[in-house]
Order: sequence, then C-alpha cells, then structure tokens
Amino acid sequence: MHDPVWSCIVSTGQTWTVGVTGATGYAGGEVCRLLAGHPYLRLAGVHANSSAGRRLGELQPHLLPYADLEVQPSAPEDLAGYDVVVLALPHGESAAVAAQLSPDTLVVDCGADHRLEDPAAWTRWYGSEHAGSWPYGLPELPGQRERLAGARRIAVPGCYPTSVTLALAPALAAGLVGPDVVVVAASGTSGAGKAAKPHLLGSEVMGSVSAYGVGGVHRHTPEMVQNLSRAAGSPVTVSFTPTLVPMSRGILATCSAPLSAGTDEAAVRAVYEKAYADEPFVHLLPEGQWPTTAQVLGANTVALQVAVDPDAGRLVVVAAVDNLTKGTGGAAVQCANLALGLPETTGLPLVGVAP
Amino acid sequence: MHDPVWSCIVSTGQTWTVGVTGATGYAGGEVCRLLAGHPYLRLAGVHANSSAGRRLGELQPHLLPYADLEVQPSAPEDLAGYDVVVLALPHGESAAVAAQLSPDTLVVDCGADHRLEDPAAWTRWYGSEHAGSWPYGLPELPGQRERLAGARRIAVPGCYPTSVTLALAPALAAGLVGPDVVVVAASGTSGAGKAAKPHLLGSEVMGSVSAYGVGGVHRHTPEMVQNLSRAAGSPVTVSFTPTLVPMSRGILATCSAPLSAGTDEAAVRAVYEKAYADEPFVHLLPEGQWPTTAQVLGANTVALQVAVDPDAGRLVVVAAVDNLTKGTGGAAVQCANLALGLPETTGLPLVGVAP
Amino acid sequence: MHDPVWSCIVSTGQTWTVGVTGATGYAGGEVCRLLAGHPYLRLAGVHANSSAGRRLGELQPHLLPYADLEVQPSAPEDLAGYDVVVLALPHGESAAVAAQLSPDTLVVDCGADHRLEDPAAWTRWYGSEHAGSWPYGLPELPGQRERLAGARRIAVPGCYPTSVTLALAPALAAGLVGPDVVVVAASGTSGAGKAAKPHLLGSEVMGSVSAYGVGGVHRHTPEMVQNLSRAAGSPVTVSFTPTLVPMSRGILATCSAPLSAGTDEAAVRAVYEKAYADEPFVHLLPEGQWPTTAQVLGANTVALQVAVDPDAGRLVVVAAVDNLTKGTGGAAVQCANLALGLPETTGLPLVGVAP
Amino acid sequence: MHDPVWSCIVSTGQTWTVGVTGATGYAGGEVCRLLAGHPYLRLAGVHANSSAGRRLGELQPHLLPYADLEVQPSAPEDLAGYDVVVLALPHGESAAVAAQLSPDTLVVDCGADHRLEDPAAWTRWYGSEHAGSWPYGLPELPGQRERLAGARRIAVPGCYPTSVTLALAPALAAGLVGPDVVVVAASGTSGAGKAAKPHLLGSEVMGSVSAYGVGGVHRHTPEMVQNLSRAAGSPVTVSFTPTLVPMSRGILATCSAPLSAGTDEAAVRAVYEKAYADEPFVHLLPEGQWPTTAQVLGANTVALQVAVDPDAGRLVVVAAVDNLTKGTGGAAVQCANLALGLPETTGLPLVGVAP
Repeated sequence: MHDPVWSCIVSTGQTWTVGVTGATGYAGGEVCRLLAGHPYLRLAGVHANSSAGRRLGELQPHLLPYADLEVQPSAPEDLAGYDVVVLALPHGESAAVAAQLSPDTLVVDCGADHRLEDPAAWTRWYGSEHAGSWPYGLPELPGQRERLAGARRIAVPGCYPTSVTLALAPALAAGLVGPDVVVVAASGTSGAGKAAKPHLLGSEVMGSVSAYGVGGVHRHTPEMVQNLSRAAGSPVTVSFTPTLVPMSRGILATCSAPLSAGTDEAAVRAVYEKAYADEPFVHLLPEGQWPTTAQVLGANTVALQVAVDPDAGRLVVVAAVDNLTKGTGGAAVQCANLALGLPETTGLPLVGVAP
Repeated sequence: MHDPVWSCIVSTGQTWTVGVTGATGYAGGEVCRLLAGHPYLRLAGVHANSSAGRRLGELQPHLLPYADLEVQPSAPEDLAGYDVVVLALPHGESAAVAAQLSPDTLVVDCGADHRLEDPAAWTRWYGSEHAGSWPYGLPELPGQRERLAGARRIAVPGCYPTSVTLALAPALAAGLVGPDVVVVAASGTSGAGKAAKPHLLGSEVMGSVSAYGVGGVHRHTPEMVQNLSRAAGSPVTVSFTPTLVPMSRGILATCSAPLSAGTDEAAVRAVYEKAYADEPFVHLLPEGQWPTTAQVLGANTVALQVAVDPDAGRLVVVAAVDNLTKGTGGAAVQCANLALGLPETTGLPLVGVAP
Repeated sequence: MHDPVWSCIVSTGQTWTVGVTGATGYAGGEVCRLLAGHPYLRLAGVHANSSAGRRLGELQPHLLPYADLEVQPSAPEDLAGYDVVVLALPHGESAAVAAQLSPDTLVVDCGADHRLEDPAAWTRWYGSEHAGSWPYGLPELPGQRERLAGARRIAVPGCYPTSVTLALAPALAAGLVGPDVVVVAASGTSGAGKAAKPHLLGSEVMGSVSAYGVGGVHRHTPEMVQNLSRAAGSPVTVSFTPTLVPMSRGILATCSAPLSAGTDEAAVRAVYEKAYADEPFVHLLPEGQWPTTAQVLGANTVALQVAVDPDAGRLVVVAAVDNLTKGTGGAAVQCANLALGLPETTGLPLVGVAP
Repeated sequence: MHDPVWSCIVSTGQTWTVGVTGATGYAGGEVCRLLAGHPYLRLAGVHANSSAGRRLGELQPHLLPYADLEVQPSAPEDLAGYDVVVLALPHGESAAVAAQLSPDTLVVDCGADHRLEDPAAWTRWYGSEHAGSWPYGLPELPGQRERLAGARRIAVPGCYPTSVTLALAPALAAGLVGPDVVVVAASGTSGAGKAAKPHLLGSEVMGSVSAYGVGGVHRHTPEMVQNLSRAAGSPVTVSFTPTLVPMSRGILATCSAPLSAGTDEAAVRAVYEKAYADEPFVHLLPEGQWPTTAQVLGANTVALQVAVDPDAGRLVVVAAVDNLTKGTGGAAVQCANLALGLPETTGLPLVGVAP
C-alpha cells in the first residue's frame, strides 16, 4: 500500500546542509519550519539582507529551536559551502545571486526569476532582462517529476499558479473545457509578505475582504497562462482576480472554464481521478465535500473538487492550498527531495493543522 | 448640495409602528438594530417561531435598548395591528404568513418567496408552488424606485443578487459586455444564518475559506439571472460560486463578463458614473481604489470598482456590501422609507464601522 | 419612560461646526463616523499632520460621505474658527495645540495630555512637564456629569481606564473590595493605532493572542490608579496586563479585587444596579449573561457583569466596551453633547453591530 | 548538543499500534494528526460514540491520509487489541471505559476523570464518585518524568492547568510569591469542543471576546489549585477567569501572584531559567519578548515570560500554549513516548505554524 505517512523512517544515514536566504520573511521562515522536521536536510545557516547580526528568534519567534541562530549577510559569497541553497528573496533578486553559486550546489528559488520561459513575458511583467528559465518545481505536471530528479537549479512555482494549474490542467489537457479561464482566488495575508504596509495591518484586514490586482495585472497571471496553455496545447486566456481574506495562510482558488460539448461530471471526475491517483499531495475529495483552506494549513497538500454547471455551461474546480507550504516552502522541500534522490514526501506534513 | 448625512433631521412628527418576525435571527436582528436609530419607524414588537416568551436580550445580546422586550409568537394573527411588518423568516415561510396580513399593512419580506417572477423558476429551485412576485426592493434599478413608492408589499432582494446586480446591470444594459457572466463571491458567515451547524462553528471557519453551493446550485442564482437578463434585454447565464470567509458580515462579489468589441475602461467608467451619480448608497470608487467589505460594515452602502482586462477580454466589477445591511435589513428599511414617503436614507448608516 | 433611542428627534435648529485633527487615524476617524449620524454637530473640516492635501477617502475609505474632503494642515491656526475642535493626536501633542485655541472653543482632547491630575505622575510616565488637568470626560462617575456641562476643555479618558473604572469604581466606593486590583484586558488591534508596525500586521495578529506592556509599564496604569483611588477614597494598586487579540475593535476587561468581609453577590449586584440605574450607556447584564465585545461594537455602550468567587476571595467584574466608540470617539461626542447642552445620547449608537 | 529536532531519525524498528476513541472530536483529531508524523506510533483504528460507520474524512477533513478509515464503535471491547489506547471522551466518560481495558495496554486519558487526587474535589466539581487518580501527565513537574516512564495509565492535564502550572509552579516552589493567585486566560474556541452551540458559531465569536465560567466555577480550577498548592507546599487560592477569543487554537494565560519580600526580576529569571533549562518543550523567552499563541500553533511547546511589577507588588507570568497540542494531544503523545521508553520528543512538532 502507498503509505506516505511512514516514508520518513527510511534512514539513509546521509544529511545535506541547507542555507536559507531571506530567512526572516514568511517564505524563508516556512522553509526553516519544515527543515526542523526533516530528517536529512539540516538547516545550517540563515541569511537576510537587512537583519544580519540579529538573533533569528527576534524576527521569527516561532522558530524556537533556531532562536539563537545569528542571521548572516546574504551576498553570494556568504551562501557558499552549503549543499542546498534556498532563495526566498523578493522577485527579481534571485537571478543575480544564483549566477554566482556553484553549479554543484542545489539552488531552489522561491522567487519568480526563473519561472517564465518566454523572455518577452518576463520583460513585460517585470521590466528587466530575463535570466532564463529553470526546471519548474511542480512535480505533479506530466513529465515534470523526471525533470526535477537530479536537477541543481529549480524554480518553485508561485502560490496562485500552483493552485490554479493543478485545478485546471487535467481538464484542459483532456479537452474537457475551452480556453476562456476565469479564476478568482482568496488568499491569506501572508501572501503579501512581511513588509509593514498600512493596508495589511490587522486592524484593516480582520473582518474584511478586498480585491487587488484586478483586471489582469497580477504578476502571477503570465505563469498561469504559460502552464495552462501548455496543458491545453494551445493558448488560453486567464481572467485572474486575487482577493485578500482575513486569515494568515491559505489560498482557495475558484477556477472555471467553458465546457466542451458533451462533457459531463462523470467524465470530469474520471479525468481528475486518473491524473492524481498516484500523487501523494493532491487529493480529489469525495463527491459532496468541498475544499477548505483549514484542511491543508501547514501541510504540503492540495484539496480539489470539481463541479459541472450545465446552466452556465462551465466547469468549476476549486482548489485549496497553503500558500506558504505547498504554495512555496513545502514545494521547495518537495523539489529538493526529488533533486537529491530522497523520497518525495520526506519531512513534509500531510495533515493540516485543524481546526 | 446633495447631503444625505443630514436628511435625518427633517422631522415630520409622524411615526409608524413596526413588528419584526424572525427577530431572533440575524436578518431580523439587523432590522431591529437599524430601527433603534430610525426617527420615524418604531420597533413595537418582536416575534419568532421557537423563542416566544423569552427576553430578546437573551437571544440578541447587542440589542441592549430592546433587551427586555418579550418575544411574541409569530402566527399571522400575532402580527396584526402594526403599520409595518417585516418578515425575516426562512425561505418558503413568508408567503403563507403574508397572505393573511391586511392589504393596508406595509409588508416587507426579507425572504425569497416573492422575488422571482417566473413561477417555473420558483418551483424548480424551491420545490413548492409560487406565491407570486412582489415589487422588487432594489430601488437603484431603472424605474424601480417609482414602483416602490407607496407599495404595500415589497420583496427585499437576496444579498448576493444585490451585489451582483448592482455590479453588472449597467454594463449589460449598455451593451458593454456579453452574456457569459462569472461570479465568485466571498461571504461572511452570518449569511448562513444562526442555526448551529458544525461546519459554521468558529473553530471551523476561522482561518479558513471554503466554497459551497458550487456548480450553479445556489438558490440565489435564478434571481441573478432574472435581474441581469432584464438589464441586458436578453438571456444571460451566470456561473455563480459562493465562498465562505472568516468574518461575520460582508460580501465581496467579483463579477466578470466578456467585453463587447470596442469597450474600453473609459467607456465603462462613464456608464457607471452615470448610472449611480444620484444614488445615495452606491459609490463608484475613484480609480485605483478597490472595495473592501470593512468600508461598508453595518452601513447601507455599496462600494464598486471596475476594470477592463484586455488580455482576457473581460470586464471585472467588484462590489462590496454588508449582507445584513444593504444586503437585507438596511434594504428593508430603505424600501419602507420609500413606501411610506420618507426620505430614502432616513435612519440608515452611510458610514461603515471601520477599522 | 426613559427612551434614549428616540432622543435624536428633538430638533433645536442649531448646529455646531466641528474640526477634527488627527482625522486620518483610528480615533479621529471614529469621531468623523459618529458625526455623520449626529443631527447637530457638523463635521466641517479634517486635519492631520502628514497627509495634508490628500482626499480623506484615500485614507479612511469607510468615510464615504466625506471622501472628497481635503485633509488640512494641523497647526493651531488651521484649527481656528470651529465651534468644536476634537484633538485625536498622539499622546503629548495635544497640550501645545490646545494652548493656542480660543477659550471659547470647545476643545475635546482624545489624548492623554490632560487626564492625570498629579503632575509628578505625568512626568514619571510621559517624561515631559505636565500641562495641567482638564475636566475628565467620564460622565458616569459621581458628580462628573455636572462638571462637564458647559465645560470648554475636556479630557477624554483612555480606553482601558474607561472600562476598568466603570467596572470597579462602584465596588471600591462601597467598600465591597480591598485595594489589590488585578486587571487583564483583551484589546482589539485598533487600540495600537494605524502606524504600520510589523507585529501589528494581519498575518501576525490573526490567530494569535499576545501580551504587551506587562509588569505595570502600560501608560494607562496611572490613570486607572487615579480613578480607582478616588473612588475608594484611599490608594489602590493596579496590576494591569493588556493583551492583544485578533479583532479590530473592542476591549474586554477582567477586573478583580479581594472581597471585604461579608460581601456577597447580592450586595454587589445591589450596588451596581444602583450605580448605573440611570446611565443610558452602562448596562449591568442580567445574571447568567456575560459581556461580549460584539454586543457593543460601534456602540457607545458598556456591558458589565459581576461575580463573587468565595473560594478565591475575590470579586470579578467583566466589562466590554468598543475602544474606539465609548473608549474614545463616542466618549468625545458624549462629552461634547453635555458641554453644549444637548441630550447626552444625541447621535450615539446604542446598539452594537452584531453578529 | 541537545538537538531535539533530530531525535526522530533514531529508528528502533519497533512500532506500536494506537487506537483513538473520540477521534471525531477536536482532541482526538489532534492525536491523529500527530500520529501521522510519528515514526513509531501507528494509528490503527479510530472510534467514536455517535459516528460509527462513517468515513473519518467526512468528519475530520484535514486528516487526509486517514480519510478512508471507517469510524468504529467505542465500547470497551471495541478498544481491545491495541498497544496504546487514547481516550478523548467527554469528562466523566473515561473511567468506565478504562476500567475494562487490559492493564498491559497503555491507556492515555485526555479527559479529567483521573487528574484530581482528592476524591472530594472530584465529587464537588463533577458530581459523581471518583475513579481514582492516575500518574499526571506533566513531565515538566519535578519528579514527574520518572513517574511516567513505564506507566500504563496516564492522565493528561487540562489545557488551562498545563499553562498555568508551568507558569507559576517554579515561583511558588521557590517562595518568590504568595498564595493569592489570579489567572485570566484567553482561549481559542476549539477548547469548547465541536458540539454545535449557537454561541460558538463563527458569526458570534469572530470579532468578539467574551468571558465565561467567571467567579471560580470553571472545572479546571481544582486542578490548578492541586498543582500549585503542591508546588508551593501549602494551599494556594486561584481566581481563574477564562475568556474566549476569536481564534481556533491557543491559550494565553496571564498569571500573577503577590511578590514575597525581596523578590526582584533577576531572582525570578534565575529560578525559571534553572527550572526549564533542560526542558525541550518549555521556552523562557529572552527579556523583552512576550509570548504569542501563534508561535506555538500546532507545536508541543510552551512560551513563557516573566515580569515583576513593584508598584502593584505582583509577579506576572504569561504562558502561551496550543490547547490542542501541548494542551492535550501533544501531551498525550509526549507521555506515551515516555511510557514506552521512546525519546520524549519523538514525532512532536517543535515549531509553530506561523504566521
């Protein structure tokens, strides 16, 4: 029987050292949290641009076992010597750092710099010159797991694209739907980062939902278009609206696309069941049960459900992920496991912290 | 200058008595709250099915000025003698009660029973025989304010249809968009009512977002289809997905439809500015500002914003309302004001309780 | 019958202009919100230190009726000409401004500058020289209402001292308890202000409770000691611990003191019932019902309950207030009503926005 | 170096089967969650009174790896055959079940039935006859770890007593404070269980704080009195007020007691540093840092801080725990580890899920 829960007891005796840069932010902190439970990857150093010299405990109070680590500077030379380097830097800052790291080092980039394959798309959305694409860290895509095995450079997907791609790629690949994709996603506030901005104050976000980046201007849009167009085998459009909801973590993506002629719910379920039958982290829920972000809180899992709306003529797929775990830090560990030849689920929580 | 803030000081000397049935629920409680600040409508009695004989304060602790009112039974004969009766009953229970109330009494129904015009639609969605439609309590629709003046039967719209209709009706009426409407709406939990169900426990909903009623099965769908088809002058489809977010009150509706050829953002803004220029409760926000549910919390206002996404070829309109105020109880008071010849804004908060 | 709900319809025909400085912060915004529903006090100008020239709507999105007001500078000369000036400035900044305003202007200070009577206490806690005390804006204290009638300078109490003083003053005045007071209060985050600090981000405060200012170092402590010692007629000590809880508004203060010999619950209830029998804003709840901050959200009310613990030998009193309404902005309006000779409840919500 | 993070890689090859009864509730669900990450304890069956025959996934959606387990009945005979049985039943129901389990089975009771040593105290607070006390599952108390090694019956402490005992026992034991203890604790709503009650609805608890069980009537009080009196070596009184705050998990206990003559903060810190120097799960934070419940969310850790208030003459200690992890389910696993001779930290998260 496939029993991912128990995979962590396979001991190889070998460990790898990991350096995390951007460790004082939310994505970097999540990587550190997961490493605390990983048997073979050992957090050996934390780095950050602006907090060098401080105790990590001041900046990440939950990382109690690592509280006394001193934050190191984050120049490329400070990152030498680790077996694995995780980059959790602002978008656009990874490429310059990565370029100076040894090709033998496994570099896992949580930023956007190496996700897009089309240099023109990068330049349109980020304004600078593209640094080139890396193997894309979504092992659940067809053929992708193989590309990540042994890789030394990996681009972790964005949190929204992870949820949206897993939600719609099977239907598009199977021709069950047409290319007019509409996505509205609710995200917890940690997705907006740790920089103190007035609209992200607790007083502002509690009891409130808001939209932002409306009208197709969110930078995760081209990544979704890339992934879904590849799945469909032809161009799709994505109308993407992110909303901010009063919780710290989690994304619920509501994704829809026009039904192809003759698509019914049984056909859809069959396609999704097949697509994710062997995936340890992707769960198509039983009929009648809908995803909640609580059920995946802090876990590397994705909960999915599908519905066909014959009146509106659309397939609706809802996906829940934790933006910091499967959406970022957990995906980074999952990809590192693959790259290093470890069981893919090693050290990754499969159960959300609920209620 | 149009100054709705000050309208409440016009004293007529006359007052009307109001009886609220279903006063122990969320919608009924909201009507009571608003009446506490209304100069001409006086809460004269509270009624409920199952709590008759108890103090209102036990069941609605926030209604401190009314805490000692005894809850009365809710048979039609118990509701006789009021100038105004507000029905805040479960869907399907209003019609039988209303049928026995005097035609001279102003009856404002917060339930669904009299909203749909098509008897077949009622029977499809609610299973019973339709009791007939009443004047629809959304004064912001063209010509609707006039129909409500002097009315003695009014059907208050559903909370989702209020937000969605105000969001898209102008664009559909002006031909700016086509009929393939997609709506994903986030709602606070009070929209699910006060019956104690496990999935509505605080422990379950805090820190979590979930979808429900997916695939076109939510009962507010035919009401949206009715309103938007009327606005468009031809049938529209609505793919509607409601989601539950961790807050008590508020709806944020993200609505989109395919752009008609040649529609740009300037054209859209011009249409919306014109549609709502004289509406005291509907605010098209300045460019760059997006609605939040916090800004309308407890207020009878709607905040709107529009965006054109040329890549995806869709217009996106986001609307924020408080589901209990403009979405239900405030709309009931607004309509009662109109029916009784009072200034429409009388007693209605225009400012949300924020932060 | 005493019917505070209806007091707002007594029209005098006269209005007063109000200028609010610090209008872009949470306390100032709350004053503006309440003025929007006040029939005689008219918001005539908004001022702030750093945002002069911007639209109020950018900074306070909920103040929709005032969105187009331009924020004015906040030097003393900018505040001339109003009938009433409300100061909602950081602690220590009010005194210098107030000193230059006309003695005929009603000045209501929401800051701490003029609350403490003992200059030494001021200097110990704030470091500067004391500017002198003003009539203390807690009309519910014995004799205080009379001192506020006709006053032209009023010091609005701190939010914590309001809740704690109303909770314990009657028991101390009646000799029911001894002087070893212990208070632990839970506050919503708006009490910490609108300045963007990392620990106040939504991501940090949602799902979390924390203590701060522990060990008697919170600046509201001397104000509580002042009020409770006066009530007791002899010195009391106050062990005060504030905690931050995941909500925007509200304070729940749990206050205890050692029972005097022979004190039982009946005696306590009798004292509190008498103390607050005629107070429109203070509600001793029926036995068995405990205060919630939700029931006073956005209202100028205080909910109280008492319990005697014979095992521990302490009286416990729990008080709920909205820190921004009765705790600050509502108290400012209440005091202005008194000072101007208006009915005390004019324009003040008596019903919380719940659920 | 003491490195609890790595303890999980010591593989013994042996595993134990665990049956959890009450697995559909919050405490039972937490035990299941933790077992999913435990290398030697294997969840072999789930039981519950009322849900027998249903899939666990319907009732505990986050337990995705166990979703297809069928819930078994919960009579004593249904619980035979496991190496370990965890009882997560309502208070008062454990004793009858436990009495019929084999003395060789390790029985860990998350209920109150076997916590109190004084039969009279049990009868006063629970009304029935006492079933006798079991070894008390708080290994951090002096000598307690030794009592738990090899035990086959263990009473897991209550969540409030865990936080309060760890907060004050060292000071009482060292004579730093006197016996008049005052505790106000904020708890997330999961502490109130999963039964659907109206006052626990999300709509009621979000944005609201309330007190309950005020006046010394909460059933955890005698357990605190027992523990703290034992620590002090003489009777203490505990004024305990629990409050409900808008989050799912976590307890923040603010505990104070009168300072003994001559106690200063340095003396207090020295005592606490010594008391918890070797404890893997108890963290005295560095000076200036205060506990938050977020930092221990889902972790088996306790965060503590101390402060001396010379004006009020009290020591204040603040403790944060997750009521379901270190407060219940994590403590159960910790105790099982000890009883079975496993490293105490095996399978227990040391890092909270933050932000």
